Amino acid sequence: MIYIDSKENNTFKKIKKYRTKKYRDKEKRFIAEGIKFLDFDTVPEYILIDEGFLCDKTTSEKIKKFSESIIITLSQTLFSQLSSQENSQGIILVYRYEENYINMIEDNIIVLDRVGDPGNLGTIIRTADAAGYRDIVLTKGSVDCYNEKTVRSTMGSIFNVRLYYIEEEVLLNFLKEKEYKIISTILSDDCIPYTEMKLGEKNAVVFGNEGSGIGENIVNNSDEKVIIPIYGTAESLNVAMACGIIMYKCRELENLK
Amino acid sequence: MIYIDSKENNTFKKIKKYRTKKYRDKEKRFIAEGIKFLDFDTVPEYILIDEGFLCDKTTSEKIKKFSESIIITLSQTLFSQLSSQENSQGIILVYRYEENYINMIEDNIIVLDRVGDPGNLGTIIRTADAAGYRDIVLTKGSVDCYNEKTVRSTMGSIFNVRLYYIEEEVLLNFLKEKEYKIISTILSDDCIPYTEMKLGEKNAVVFGNEGSGIGENIVNNSDEKVIIPIYGTAESLNVAMACGIIMYKCRELENLK
Repeated sequence: MIYIDSKENNTFKKIKKYRTKKYRDKEKRFIAEGIKFLDFDTVPEYILIDEGFLCDKTTSEKIKKFSESIIITLSQTLFSQLSSQENSQGIILVYRYEENYINMIEDNIIVLDRVGDPGNLGTIIRTADAAGYRDIVLTKGSVDCYNEKTVRSTMGSIFNVRLYYIEEEVLLNFLKEKEYKIISTILSDDCIPYTEMKLGEKNAVVFGNEGSGIGENIVNNSDEKVIIPIYGTAESLNVAMACGIIMYKCRELENLK
Repeated sequence: MIYIDSKENNTFKKIKKYRTKKYRDKEKRFIAEGIKFLDFDTVPEYILIDEGFLCDKTTSEKIKKFSESIIITLSQTLFSQLSSQENSQGIILVYRYEENYINMIEDNIIVLDRVGDPGNLGTIIRTADAAGYRDIVLTKGSVDCYNEKTVRSTMGSIFNVRLYYIEEEVLLNFLKEKEYKIISTILSDDCIPYTEMKLGEKNAVVFGNEGSGIGENIVNNSDEKVIIPIYGTAESLNVAMACGIIMYKCRELENLK
């Protein structure tokens, strides 16, 4: 096991940079925090342990399972510089990721048009994984899926889905070429209720930004526009909630096919 | 308009206490933070403004609308002692609330059994309001609905629903007496998929604690147990998400009746 207590240490300096999107993108790495992550099969590149962390037998065995990971003990000062949590559990992991390319997309997909809140994205990833979706496309301008808050709120589902950041124009051309049915969820009266939507052979269900909804160009290129009715007096549903309700409805309709 | 800059001021001391559950319960008051709350019709008892707050014309008109509210400007030091937000918008509101009693419950209800996360409860309240549910019952041990984080995440729906804190035994007796169908949502294989649930005349749909689920006694007294299937590899759904999916399914089934 390696011990680091100097902030000039190159490994520490490198890992610290992964807290910014720029370096995550460049190095294809991201950070996750919490003991929970030791339960997933994905092998971390680094396991960083706070020197003040009291490692019990169970945790120690979970760590040993990752024989290919580099295990580092950090001084409390250095650990706190990496941690983003108030009550840290004393474990931070660094993962490699591979970039996904548009031609890997298959089957039904979820499209998120400039979704901005990291927690919402995390919940959508977790729910998409639960509903059996594998491919999630985000248009440019969406929040970074490797943001620590997003990673945490996926509850491990970040490892089970494939995420794509694609320019709107490129995406629309791809969907047309591959004969996807584009279904947009909109808060507008000229939509049909989501319970009456008709799925195509392959479907791209689109959800928009928390404030401004789905961009005009995507709306205009949609094959179907659906709404989740508001029965009470709430102004709207949270985008992750809307996404979950529609994804499970699609799954139900798929099962009835 | 009143100006307060002494922490010994009685009104300030009283309002500060509303940050704790004990005094909220005792005085039947709660605190909400953010300009957004000025958009709702519910009249606040107090509108507290940070003296550093630059009140534009729109906000000023919204404040004037509440002619019955007591408007107080607080020194920045005092305001920051009340505020729970890092980037405060400079507006805090105090509301009165009325306690709700079990005999006010009517029609279909949602039951939350010891739901513990304030954000989850807020999202459930917002979604219940959207789905047209009016009565939400929480068993003792659930998080306080007047917690500031809960209030914030309801996005104003806290004013549109009725919330009840009821002992499990009292609740079960009430539901039996009033001939409610008790439908529990559980992660277990001896359940039917939620898409096949049969609603009764009046239904109480139950959701459990984030970690431990629904208590044994309620499960044993259920008329139907339903599951939201996990199609992918996620371990579970977030409780607010599960609640939203089921509430909207119930609404759909109601509409088909």
